[in-house]
Amino acid sequence: MDDRKPEIIDTRLIARSRLFGIEEMHLRFSNGEERTYERLRTPPIAGVMCVPLLDRDTVVLIREYGAGVEDYQITLPKGAYEHGEDWRDAANRELKEEAGYGARKLTLLKRMTLSPGYMGHAITVALAEDLYEEKLPGDEPEPLEVITWKLSDLDRLLEREDVTEARVIAALLMTRRILETR
Amino acid sequence: MDDRKPEIIDTRLIARSRLFGIEEMHLRFSNGEERTYERLRTPPIAGVMCVPLLDRDTVVLIREYGAGVEDYQITLPKGAYEHGEDWRDAANRELKEEAGYGARKLTLLKRMTLSPGYMGHAITVALAEDLYEEKLPGDEPEPLEVITWKLSDLDRLLEREDVTEARVIAALLMTRRILETR
Repeated sequence: MDDRKPEIIDTRLIARSRLFGIEEMHLRFSNGEERTYERLRTPPIAGVMCVPLLDRDTVVLIREYGAGVEDYQITLPKGAYEHGEDWRDAANRELKEEAGYGARKLTLLKRMTLSPGYMGHAITVALAEDLYEEKLPGDEPEPLEVITWKLSDLDRLLEREDVTEARVIAALLMTRRILETR
Repeated sequence: MDDRKPEIIDTRLIARSRLFGIEEMHLRFSNGEERTYERLRTPPIAGVMCVPLLDRDTVVLIREYGAGVEDYQITLPKGAYEHGEDWRDAANRELKEEAGYGARKLTLLKRMTLSPGYMGHAITVALAEDLYEEKLPGDEPEPLEVITWKLSDLDRLLEREDVTEARVIAALLMTRRILETR
């Protein structure tokens, strides 16, 4: 099989806002086929998400309003890196801002993407352990609800209609697997 | 805890392209805080993704170029509904177009979202079983590579750098769990 990547003939920004950019790409595939694709511009700043564990079987979750789905969702602490931060700094800061905990131990789980065909957005997912209570002020419009859930009861969490985010589902299932094999 | 959703004062389209729309939302939270958020416009057409099983331990995957990440990715057959289709029709058509199989048995796994804070995009994830060979022509610029992988070796798949899509990781882990408990 021909394994050469398509040649990117041209990429141009065709629309933008404060947060998003839309790009048009002109591609030539290795078989000579040409296509014009649209994609979101990849944000210059990466993101991080963490799975905070209070103990071997207890995960800390947050409940937050999602403007995209116009409803509250159960999710995990996450956010973009701030100036000069690495993923560990960002994970710990977001964890303190959103859930009120710091973590003495952070383990990289996986670098995940959202929709590789249409966006380059990537997030580093980390396990956060050996937690201690510490709250940092965030920029949330209302306080986030912090809840805990048993990993041994994860299947029931995944049945909930307010648990839909693929990155959250993937992160929690990977976490359960790791703890089962430790 | 106050459980009232924020009031959506106003939503307007501020930029658009053939594929994407960017909206600005003016929200008033139940505590009186107001915010202006940006989000992607939710596509009018939903999507479907399927996990095709050749047998209890063998999943069918595809390898496809992702313009967002500018590289090849291992993923699952997926796509948007076409006119008049329900999720079962769409799942079967995409499976035939992208992997060369039809499925006699489709089971709903989960409705997943991408990034609830910034987009309403949702995809129905289904288990596809009792497969038979049938190829439908798709609109791909180059033939997709169809590969198989053992679910018993899923952990090694998830370590690969060309396996990053959160929806794919979540779907495969949910599938393994279901098969383990059957």
